[in-house]
Amino acid sequence: MRSPTAILQLICPDRPALVSELSGWVAANGGNIRHADHHTDADAGLFLSRIEWELEGFGLPREAIAPAVRALATRLGGEGQLHLSDVTTTAAIFVSRQDHALVDLLWRTRAGELPMRVPLVVANHPQLQAVAEGFGARFVHVPIGPDNRAEAEDRQLELLAEHGIELVVLAKYMQVVTPRFLERVNAGGPHRVINIHHSFLPAFQGAQPYHRAWERGVKLIGATAHYVTEELDAGPIIEQATVHVSHRDEVDDLIRKGRDTERLALSRAVRLHLRRQVMVYRGRTAVFD
Amino acid sequence: MRSPTAILQLICPDRPALVSELSGWVAANGGNIRHADHHTDADAGLFLSRIEWELEGFGLPREAIAPAVRALATRLGGEGQLHLSDVTTTAAIFVSRQDHALVDLLWRTRAGELPMRVPLVVANHPQLQAVAEGFGARFVHVPIGPDNRAEAEDRQLELLAEHGIELVVLAKYMQVVTPRFLERVNAGGPHRVINIHHSFLPAFQGAQPYHRAWERGVKLIGATAHYVTEELDAGPIIEQATVHVSHRDEVDDLIRKGRDTERLALSRAVRLHLRRQVMVYRGRTAVFD
Amino acid sequence: MRSPTAILQLICPDRPALVSELSGWVAANGGNIRHADHHTDADAGLFLSRIEWELEGFGLPREAIAPAVRALATRLGGEGQLHLSDVTTTAAIFVSRQDHALVDLLWRTRAGELPMRVPLVVANHPQLQAVAEGFGARFVHVPIGPDNRAEAEDRQLELLAEHGIELVVLAKYMQVVTPRFLERVNAGGPHRVINIHHSFLPAFQGAQPYHRAWERGVKLIGATAHYVTEELDAGPIIEQATVHVSHRDEVDDLIRKGRDTERLALSRAVRLHLRRQVMVYRGRTAVFD
Amino acid sequence: MRSPTAILQLICPDRPALVSELSGWVAANGGNIRHADHHTDADAGLFLSRIEWELEGFGLPREAIAPAVRALATRLGGEGQLHLSDVTTTAAIFVSRQDHALVDLLWRTRAGELPMRVPLVVANHPQLQAVAEGFGARFVHVPIGPDNRAEAEDRQLELLAEHGIELVVLAKYMQVVTPRFLERVNAGGPHRVINIHHSFLPAFQGAQPYHRAWERGVKLIGATAHYVTEELDAGPIIEQATVHVSHRDEVDDLIRKGRDTERLALSRAVRLHLRRQVMVYRGRTAVFD
Repeated sequence: MRSPTAILQLICPDRPALVSELSGWVAANGGNIRHADHHTDADAGLFLSRIEWELEGFGLPREAIAPAVRALATRLGGEGQLHLSDVTTTAAIFVSRQDHALVDLLWRTRAGELPMRVPLVVANHPQLQAVAEGFGARFVHVPIGPDNRAEAEDRQLELLAEHGIELVVLAKYMQVVTPRFLERVNAGGPHRVINIHHSFLPAFQGAQPYHRAWERGVKLIGATAHYVTEELDAGPIIEQATVHVSHRDEVDDLIRKGRDTERLALSRAVRLHLRRQVMVYRGRTAVFD
Repeated sequence: MRSPTAILQLICPDRPALVSELSGWVAANGGNIRHADHHTDADAGLFLSRIEWELEGFGLPREAIAPAVRALATRLGGEGQLHLSDVTTTAAIFVSRQDHALVDLLWRTRAGELPMRVPLVVANHPQLQAVAEGFGARFVHVPIGPDNRAEAEDRQLELLAEHGIELVVLAKYMQVVTPRFLERVNAGGPHRVINIHHSFLPAFQGAQPYHRAWERGVKLIGATAHYVTEELDAGPIIEQATVHVSHRDEVDDLIRKGRDTERLALSRAVRLHLRRQVMVYRGRTAVFD
Repeated sequence: MRSPTAILQLICPDRPALVSELSGWVAANGGNIRHADHHTDADAGLFLSRIEWELEGFGLPREAIAPAVRALATRLGGEGQLHLSDVTTTAAIFVSRQDHALVDLLWRTRAGELPMRVPLVVANHPQLQAVAEGFGARFVHVPIGPDNRAEAEDRQLELLAEHGIELVVLAKYMQVVTPRFLERVNAGGPHRVINIHHSFLPAFQGAQPYHRAWERGVKLIGATAHYVTEELDAGPIIEQATVHVSHRDEVDDLIRKGRDTERLALSRAVRLHLRRQVMVYRGRTAVFD
Repeated sequence: MRSPTAILQLICPDRPALVSELSGWVAANGGNIRHADHHTDADAGLFLSRIEWELEGFGLPREAIAPAVRALATRLGGEGQLHLSDVTTTAAIFVSRQDHALVDLLWRTRAGELPMRVPLVVANHPQLQAVAEGFGARFVHVPIGPDNRAEAEDRQLELLAEHGIELVVLAKYMQVVTPRFLERVNAGGPHRVINIHHSFLPAFQGAQPYHRAWERGVKLIGATAHYVTEELDAGPIIEQATVHVSHRDEVDDLIRKGRDTERLALSRAVRLHLRRQVMVYRGRTAVFD
């Protein structure tokens, strides 16, 4: 097993010697860097850094690292986040009736590919109860519609609070989430909701994308995993995948192939997020993989 | 070398026994089928067929095959086209200033990958003269703009007529072609103009797609080769390709990677067209590859 | 839902008019062809054909079609097989300790992607009992080793007979199967055992392929789904898939990525097999997709 | 245009604080880091680093940087190399009769995709003279065979010396290069010869790989770009690519598709090398892309 690490993600205005300053700070505290990746966006004048170092032998006590990181970020005029790799993220999965993304996420979690715990599955339909419970998650059916959206979201937020949820994965959850819901979920930290979009964004937005792709006779279809923001389908893209199709594929073949790209893109995105390899700035992501 | 073949492409209303009737017609004339591929679009009630048979030993004389095919198609209430594989298609390539697609097409033609002759390159800029002439093509500079579009197109059409052009490939030709131009080129037969679109259609239409893709932070970019129809960028898609990009790629990296996908998608589309593996119906294609 | 079809797969010596003869036979019996695909291997002098037609309205009664197909094949000096699409294939899955391929196959079967029934999972280890039973399959633990191979295989063959198994899928079954076992399973028809090989054949055969791939620093790893024949890892290839890796991937990342390619390649291969889109000749396959 | 940078590649035994020490050294000399990437191979106990910083404003004069880097590397017990991005690498391309890789490399060089100069093309056949000269390179025909290998290599080495060649690209050069040749070329620095191998290594080594792939019925073919070492086809892999094939592809289709993968893999590998994104250690590469 790999030994536990601390992961620092920092965004600040670019200026000389930042790499040296950050790695110097780690070294000064006795940390041994395992990975370090940096990116400068010259247009934006921004510096992004992800540094991962061994917890073992690090000079600061666990509980002191986060405050120290905040002080460091403040000194640099930016924002920093700390994650300890031995702290498992607690996630909820939201679904409707389709189970392909749910099964894939739960299976990968059980197989150790996704460093998270999934105590809770929330659904606006009752069908997937057995699947969720088969993997040991609590399944809660929260019907939702135009008439009860506010109350239903209140119930969802209660459930998230009850389970200490830090990440919500919309795994083919066929309902919009409101700005108010997002704001409440992201109160604990930014970018805590990930969605899988049934298309290669920005293409074929809206309903029945596979029907429209079929009519247009496209030769590739795709899927896009992204953070959810207030603007529908415009959140920062984490991962995209495509697959070849042909005139021999009927609409239901496109749907089947689409499912494969959806679950691959979503599980990769969740893994990148959980390992803190994704940084968001100016509506886009840097993915340090 | 493969021996020459006749290729029949036929679209007609679907009904029982069409495969038998078509292959029976070939057999009755002594033809040996090398490839046969059929597709039924149940929604449209259409039957599409591509049959390729050896010319050697075929009972009908060369010049009698096309009329016989027309009679057969009429009898089936559809439309048929005949192509003899030893008749090389004569093509013109239209370009502006970028040479990547042009060089790729000319090199593949010389290498024997694309069964066509390219006697003519037409450009609205003068820069690519040496490239075209280096591959033995005539280069004609026809400046075109809002003020002289009609006259410039007349000049282009004259050149096409002079060289007996049967296929026009828009290889990063950064000008729209008018309905009138299309109508005149397609007078000799349908779908004679192929374009490479700098995007994974239907995404990022319009100017500077790579800048917009960069801003959006997409993780894949693509290109689309399609037949040109009157509606801009909505012609039947022949081939699409994508390539991965990351936050480390600047806009000019996206442009460089885009060039690779563009030339791959375009050359594949031209090859499929030349080998008569593409059939168009209801605004989409069936590609028998 | 698509209406049921009959699928004829035929291999015979090539000669003129075979397409016409086959499609004429279907038409003469009132069949409406939905798909027809043919391939000629000129070197081998062989003709391969797959024809699929609507059962509805076909003139021969169900039970008379197979004998008629056999007579037809004999007349052409070849071999024919008939499959009716509304007859679901009964399959057994053999596993050891890894569950990724098993879960994928069972989930896809339940989701309707794989037209088969899986009443039986056989394992040489006990760990996957709950997984198999969760999907409604009987799980039988048959320990096997150098000392009891013959008896263990007898037990396996008994189980296959008891459940009327027509297809055995080795889904990360880490034991060799003997020529005797193969012969017995294939007694009911050829090519009834499919395996997923942990490598992009013919590369890195043998034990610990991911370790060897890592040492060599390859940039792509892959997986190969193939029919099992007496010669180890040399059976006809049905499907292959690859995925990019980098120096940042540790051996266990390669294993994780390998699992994804394995299950994708295997499920595609099984689907192609079940839909009778695979034909085997001279140690290789033609895949009519 | 991007402003010029200095690129440091360093390999040394791993120990704490190396990232800090290296970036501190850059900062102490007034350098602004644009990219920094590090990799630790725990098994080998090695630390690899690639740091790229702006030349503008750097405190050391150009000619003093390389000696300073050597001193730094010595202090760390490792090996370092310095490259200035405004110093264009001088390369020779070796070919035989096939031109696809040659044309691609020369075109990309002219298009600005590959930061190198190619004053020299060496061939053991005369056919590609016009191609090389069309791109402004000197073409020298050096026939080579079992009887004159030593003299021919002497002539090649003379030519390399005459043109100050720092990189030799074997672009479908169908001759082995001897250990003596390699030693002489690599005398100026390690890993100066790149080859494109007509296969997805380690598969189908030897002659006529596409014929063997066809016989085996593989569904993917590939190509491998690698540094050349004394052991044939076992040099460190830089880049690999694959493409799908089917039973419909004849051997010459495999060759055509293979050409596309070969030239893509080779040009990517050369670009990675020229930008000093490749580091070699223990017979494998780390590619910082």
